[in-house]
Amino acid sequence: MTLIDTRYRIAVIGGTGPQGKALAYRFARHGHTVVLGSRAAEKAAPVAAEVAERLAGVEGAGEVTGAANADACGDADVVLLAVPYDGHDELVATLPLAGKVVVSCVNPLAFDKAGPHGRVIDGGEGSAAESAQRIAPDAAVVGAFHHVSAVTLWGDADYLPDEDVLVCGDTDEAKQVVIELARCVTGRDGVDAGRLRLARQLEPLTAVLISINKKYKTHSGVRISGI
Amino acid sequence: MTLIDTRYRIAVIGGTGPQGKALAYRFARHGHTVVLGSRAAEKAAPVAAEVAERLAGVEGAGEVTGAANADACGDADVVLLAVPYDGHDELVATLPLAGKVVVSCVNPLAFDKAGPHGRVIDGGEGSAAESAQRIAPDAAVVGAFHHVSAVTLWGDADYLPDEDVLVCGDTDEAKQVVIELARCVTGRDGVDAGRLRLARQLEPLTAVLISINKKYKTHSGVRISGI
Repeated sequence: MTLIDTRYRIAVIGGTGPQGKALAYRFARHGHTVVLGSRAAEKAAPVAAEVAERLAGVEGAGEVTGAANADACGDADVVLLAVPYDGHDELVATLPLAGKVVVSCVNPLAFDKAGPHGRVIDGGEGSAAESAQRIAPDAAVVGAFHHVSAVTLWGDADYLPDEDVLVCGDTDEAKQVVIELARCVTGRDGVDAGRLRLARQLEPLTAVLISINKKYKTHSGVRISGI
Repeated sequence: MTLIDTRYRIAVIGGTGPQGKALAYRFARHGHTVVLGSRAAEKAAPVAAEVAERLAGVEGAGEVTGAANADACGDADVVLLAVPYDGHDELVATLPLAGKVVVSCVNPLAFDKAGPHGRVIDGGEGSAAESAQRIAPDAAVVGAFHHVSAVTLWGDADYLPDEDVLVCGDTDEAKQVVIELARCVTGRDGVDAGRLRLARQLEPLTAVLISINKKYKTHSGVRISGI
């Protein structure tokens, strides 16, 4: 049994981090093929094996393998950027992204003793997703999956019906691919949240969720009411 | 029957606008006394009368009257700023806010042919709520009620259980007052979203909701999952 309409080959850049690994798990669990990327292939392989092992016996699950980041992109349809913002631009510049759907879940945050807040990019007129689009002009960059906690993603629930995946982008076709990929997480379509520049709003919202997590001792997420 | 623990006297600055009027209605409906402010008392009076008329027969509803903005603040415990961002700073500077809990639901947005997005304040390191706090240093400014649609607030539902009111602020006592005031809208406490500077994230999130509203022909809101 599988819910997916299209089986994609998805490269997860930064796939050994908690968010990348957990999203790789959700994508493969739903039936997509995942190549989990890291700086070195030998770092990616054991994490890919761990994800694959968790999926052993899950009917319809996709294959999960490991590779160096740039190699992972090779024949991927979709490339997920799940990397820290520090070093993001330099890393993106090394990846062969032309012609691909590139999904950014990067959250540029700053932390100090008063807690987390949004990191200011391009004087407030930029975002990690927009930076990726500028660096890879022949890719179709989409922002999504910013707000779902790695802990919840890696948890035991089949799907996360209380969460929404907010999807922003300027290319309708690419955005539609990611709206469909959201089903891997929530069991239903992602929410079309508008243009790519709204990543300026989506990315730092994670600072609010982290504040809520600390206060309420939880792993919070976002749900849109009224749709 | 009333759910409230404390009856406040609430001034709604910009109370003749859709957001101010609708929040005034919710506060008074829940039992608080509301003075609806406008630039001129004679503009406030008919709107206050309209709200009061809607509440005729609602058991426990508070009184709603109109006044000029500065006069409305006079003996208020809580002052809600529900004004456009254009002219916000100049207006706030004219109000007697010292010693009061000041709630900002101001959404500084910019619009162009690609739709709405967050307006950049202080190079990305500011927000309307922080501006109000700077202009009125002896007030306790709290950010809240940014995301609940005026149409939904003015609607027929007793409470809006699918919405959350996110509350940010640096003064715990003032924040607690507003967390309680959220019950007027949702029927339950607001969500403590952290420090006042997170208004930088909460205010422009409204641009995302407006985009969603246009796409899905709805009046969307935000709910936090996991709490």
